Amino acid sequence: MSFWPNSQEFTHHRSEEFRQSFRFIQQQIRGLFDLPDHDWDVLLLPMNGSLAIESLIRTFGGRVRVETEGAFSERVKQVHHDPAANFRFGVLHETNDSRLCDISNCDFVDAVSALPYFDFPRHAKAVVTVSSKQFCAQAIWSVVMIRKDLWVQAEPLEGYLDLCRYRTFAELGETPCTPSISGLFSFAEQLQNFDVSAFRAKIDERYFRLSRIIDGVGGEMKGGPPGLTFRLPHEYQIDTESFWIPPGNQGWRQAFLWSGSDSEFEELLEKVAQVIRESPSL
Amino acid sequence: MSFWPNSQEFTHHRSEEFRQSFRFIQQQIRGLFDLPDHDWDVLLLPMNGSLAIESLIRTFGGRVRVETEGAFSERVKQVHHDPAANFRFGVLHETNDSRLCDISNCDFVDAVSALPYFDFPRHAKAVVTVSSKQFCAQAIWSVVMIRKDLWVQAEPLEGYLDLCRYRTFAELGETPCTPSISGLFSFAEQLQNFDVSAFRAKIDERYFRLSRIIDGVGGEMKGGPPGLTFRLPHEYQIDTESFWIPPGNQGWRQAFLWSGSDSEFEELLEKVAQVIRESPSL
Repeated sequence: MSFWPNSQEFTHHRSEEFRQSFRFIQQQIRGLFDLPDHDWDVLLLPMNGSLAIESLIRTFGGRVRVETEGAFSERVKQVHHDPAANFRFGVLHETNDSRLCDISNCDFVDAVSALPYFDFPRHAKAVVTVSSKQFCAQAIWSVVMIRKDLWVQAEPLEGYLDLCRYRTFAELGETPCTPSISGLFSFAEQLQNFDVSAFRAKIDERYFRLSRIIDGVGGEMKGGPPGLTFRLPHEYQIDTESFWIPPGNQGWRQAFLWSGSDSEFEELLEKVAQVIRESPSL
Repeated sequence: MSFWPNSQEFTHHRSEEFRQSFRFIQQQIRGLFDLPDHDWDVLLLPMNGSLAIESLIRTFGGRVRVETEGAFSERVKQVHHDPAANFRFGVLHETNDSRLCDISNCDFVDAVSALPYFDFPRHAKAVVTVSSKQFCAQAIWSVVMIRKDLWVQAEPLEGYLDLCRYRTFAELGETPCTPSISGLFSFAEQLQNFDVSAFRAKIDERYFRLSRIIDGVGGEMKGGPPGLTFRLPHEYQIDTESFWIPPGNQGWRQAFLWSGSDSEFEELLEKVAQVIRESPSL
């Protein structure tokens, strides 16, 4: 039977299956990042990472001191920066240039494109990531990991960006508004046997193999894994269909190495090798 | 190749395919609701309906006069109600009791669970609906249809609830933040040959057949289609796995008649008939 409000879902968001999946994800995230129940809350939010970060900031006064630089830092800065704010904010990994940032003095950490490849920033008061990037789940769920002793400082903007509301519903294993149900189940599935060491090793190996080819023809690279941001010398024309083009690209291309199957990665390597072989200048 | 930021997506949210799908949906919605380009903007927001409604309200000052009553009206009222606000707000269809509300004096209309079964509220200044309920698409996209002459009154809360930001990106056929890409394509597919008359007729026929059975055994019903909210006399024990249970249910059950295939609907009818046949009291 499937006469639920959301027609494409096989269950609804107040069902026991939903709640079990919700709680399973919370437990897996706790285990993965070593977040004991007495110190940390793990909230699952049915929204994308940008909205989840805004929720965090707006739940604690709406203003932060932005401590990192880059495209994503800049976006937060434009709306929420205040040099006198209580909380410091930073982006762990600025994906546009594959750059790991110093967030060692940050209270709130945007780890949307960073976890679990990088270590969990244990000093932080709250950390945000998403299900649909490195965790390879479908429709986006955000995860806000927040120290329990932070709640006393909440001054939320009322409404659907108020994390206190999600915290109340999380006690039931639910959300205050209609979420993507299949997206939640997909996230649970990805976390079922998630092996973080194997995940990191896979990315490092992919980075090593692709970067060696690029390096071998005098290409440039920015930053490091888990993405590979590169530029080939101008005589090699790499098409724009296979790679992500960062803003203001000037020939830069990106591959997010957490995505794609092993065979797709072999095809990618072959494609780059082919571009190099077939370059008119050779 | 699939080395995009979102690992489960076959393309990315700055691709030509994405933009085409985005624009196709806008055009189909314009056609379906007769929203000419010179009068109306059609914005697609990668967020659920509750957040989309909050976005609308917060883009135009954050306060509304809530004119309707019911669970969803109440939720908006708690956060945004101000008897002196410029704009009046109403919920077209309060799903919890299947009740069509009078929104004839409302500027902003929550039509999340109402369109396209009901007529588009043409007098409104802005109307919000979603892809994942009556339109039967996967992961939720919201649609905000807004009169162009309303923008001069925008006083947005800066950030990711600011509709002006989505309007700017919509000019490119894009969103300012990472959306569900497969959700967008699913919405486009549902709109491809959407026949609103056939859709309404299907719901009416389902309502007629199910309500006749319930009526036949002295059951009660609230409101009308597109959902069926009913309660059987207490001697008939209907299980809670096949129906949605509205809050404060007291035996009330709901079936959302836009969901489910024809064969699933036949099974549903058979199930209800069986419950009635097998009731101990008969």
